[in-house]
Amino acid sequence: MKRLTRADCARLDAGDPVASLRSRFEPPADGWLYFDANSVGAMPVTAPARMERALRHGWSELRRRGYQQDGWIESPARLGDKLAPVIGAGANSTVVCDSTSVNIFKLIVGAARLRPDRNVVISDAGNFPTDLYAAESALDLLGGKHLRLLESVDDLGSALDADTAVVFLSHVDFRTGRRHDMAAINRLTRAAGAVSCWDLSHSAGAVKVDLEASGTDLAVGCGYKYLCGGPGAPAFLYVSERYRQQMPSTIAGWQGHGDRMAFSTSYAPAAGVRRHLVGTPSVLGMVALECALDVWQQADLGPLFEKGDRIRSLLIDLIDQECDPAAARIVSPRESESRGGHVAIAVADAPGTSKRLEESRVVCTSRKPDIVRFGISPLYARYTDMWDLVERLNKALIG
Amino acid sequence: MKRLTRADCARLDAGDPVASLRSRFEPPADGWLYFDANSVGAMPVTAPARMERALRHGWSELRRRGYQQDGWIESPARLGDKLAPVIGAGANSTVVCDSTSVNIFKLIVGAARLRPDRNVVISDAGNFPTDLYAAESALDLLGGKHLRLLESVDDLGSALDADTAVVFLSHVDFRTGRRHDMAAINRLTRAAGAVSCWDLSHSAGAVKVDLEASGTDLAVGCGYKYLCGGPGAPAFLYVSERYRQQMPSTIAGWQGHGDRMAFSTSYAPAAGVRRHLVGTPSVLGMVALECALDVWQQADLGPLFEKGDRIRSLLIDLIDQECDPAAARIVSPRESESRGGHVAIAVADAPGTSKRLEESRVVCTSRKPDIVRFGISPLYARYTDMWDLVERLNKALIG
Repeated sequence: MKRLTRADCARLDAGDPVASLRSRFEPPADGWLYFDANSVGAMPVTAPARMERALRHGWSELRRRGYQQDGWIESPARLGDKLAPVIGAGANSTVVCDSTSVNIFKLIVGAARLRPDRNVVISDAGNFPTDLYAAESALDLLGGKHLRLLESVDDLGSALDADTAVVFLSHVDFRTGRRHDMAAINRLTRAAGAVSCWDLSHSAGAVKVDLEASGTDLAVGCGYKYLCGGPGAPAFLYVSERYRQQMPSTIAGWQGHGDRMAFSTSYAPAAGVRRHLVGTPSVLGMVALECALDVWQQADLGPLFEKGDRIRSLLIDLIDQECDPAAARIVSPRESESRGGHVAIAVADAPGTSKRLEESRVVCTSRKPDIVRFGISPLYARYTDMWDLVERLNKALIG
Repeated sequence: MKRLTRADCARLDAGDPVASLRSRFEPPADGWLYFDANSVGAMPVTAPARMERALRHGWSELRRRGYQQDGWIESPARLGDKLAPVIGAGANSTVVCDSTSVNIFKLIVGAARLRPDRNVVISDAGNFPTDLYAAESALDLLGGKHLRLLESVDDLGSALDADTAVVFLSHVDFRTGRRHDMAAINRLTRAAGAVSCWDLSHSAGAVKVDLEASGTDLAVGCGYKYLCGGPGAPAFLYVSERYRQQMPSTIAGWQGHGDRMAFSTSYAPAAGVRRHLVGTPSVLGMVALECALDVWQQADLGPLFEKGDRIRSLLIDLIDQECDPAAARIVSPRESESRGGHVAIAVADAPGTSKRLEESRVVCTSRKPDIVRFGISPLYARYTDMWDLVERLNKALIG
């Protein structure tokens, strides 16, 4: 293969059909490169002014009238509908609320109740720990049910049986960046009579996700990573049409009531996905996340996610070309369809490498024992950034 | 009694020892009077600048480094400690997280598990509906337990028995504004071997609350009413020392883990109240709420809550003096120690009265069937505001 140069990267930037989206986000501080889209995505340029308006007009002037006049009360459903196309979901399928962990708890309880005669929820040992904790909590409460952790998601086929109630996986492994085949796993799960539930935290906004076409039953995900909704942004949850009228709410609250303002003593769930709302929406977090979703609304998603796959493949090619393979081993899958939003390498001293990268103005993340991760958002990453990263990485690996 | 005049009210304002706190909040729009502190409290003047910094420095520049460098990760405990004095709680007893409804769910499950051999949670039919929904959800999951609703909290003594696991009440009735005697109810509850759990949403920041002195076991409350934390502000929860190491977490999540950054597959709860944290903190909501808590830190709480009691008594006196009792009946208790943060009146046409008040630049709230509520924050309310309110109320009552 011809040796890649920075000029090649610059040509890719010049030909990038979605390059203009970068201008919708606040540029990095001088000379800095951010590869932590898997942790906290960039800020839309509209966020400060819209937040200021939410504070001065919404909070300070409208006060309680903001629930109606500034759209606070409808924000969980409105933002859900804006998010839906990014994850291949239909209208009225998705709401924005609570944290990812709380939503996992709600949906795992709900899913297990859809299969009362089955006792096992299958996940994998590499799933994000908080997902496992929240799922265990759900099963503890239901009683008589337990979580079975696969060593590898590849073992799912042989693990599924008539006692499997739910298959609960993260779409992308938070360490390796491996992306699971959602459609294939959903087919297996459905064939076994179980319910599928996916955590999209490391895929939503990073890669193409198609919940409807893949036949996903339930999904959750976070708003602050690739979706760029701001630190601690509200999370989301999705319920397929199949279970939308059937699955009860786990934590009933006034936001999930069929007639919110009746303040009735007895709970009557809202039709559809809204019943999974619980308390008052996190209004200021919603304002920030909506700034990002408005960018997503205008993005050409096909070319955008193609760019994401391509730019991460370029990074892998550049690491292959420029770095000592004994010093930086590529951990992420090389095939883009099996990869999520970040590229992971294994190194001798992950925290030290991450620290030295930060000293050279690169923000990334490390995870025990030996992983350094580069989370790459197709919304604002440039091909030349990959070149510049690898140059700095090589220096950081020397230590 | 001598007839009160506006000059009397002005004299009370002039002698108000905590009047200067009003300047810490954004003033109302021209000519407007806000009596919706029971819905959305006023905005601290520091909020816009601190939010702008959180956006531009924290989110956009620090990105994932904000968790450490901008204190995001410690915010649930830090804000809990700042809030604690306002509700008479000790250090390390309170955390800020999730919504009130989700926190109710967590604590009711936890409380019921402290009394595994008892099957009844007692509440009252006038409790805030979402509290009842969330508690029912908790009991549904635990199985074999049920919620018993008293017609009146006064019936508690005869209702308590050896099957009572938990007594779960709102400190202040959201319709009438009646404040329950927390210490007396806690004594009864403890004597019956049950666990007390209080919702402070309509009392925290409105009236003196002393969780420790009153012997409260568990409490929750919201951040956006009298605490002035901003629309949809994160909620809080309190666990007394008695149960802090004993009560398990209901929804386990990475924020409640004893070693958050270990990302261990198995959950080990943090010591104390932090185990009740679940997911990533709602960072932007925390920023706004902390602006308010910093005002609370500097407030002289004794005189502040005395003012609150006194100013609401003045409002009642003025309604007695100025309004036709057939048109506006005082629903709230007349004794300040039995009253929360709002004064409620019953009128013939509550929504119409509220609407006409709004046309005369008064923001209040109405609740079915016939209640109009005036939520009054001691932080920024003026005695003369009560005079001006009653003047406009009289016109609104005529219709």
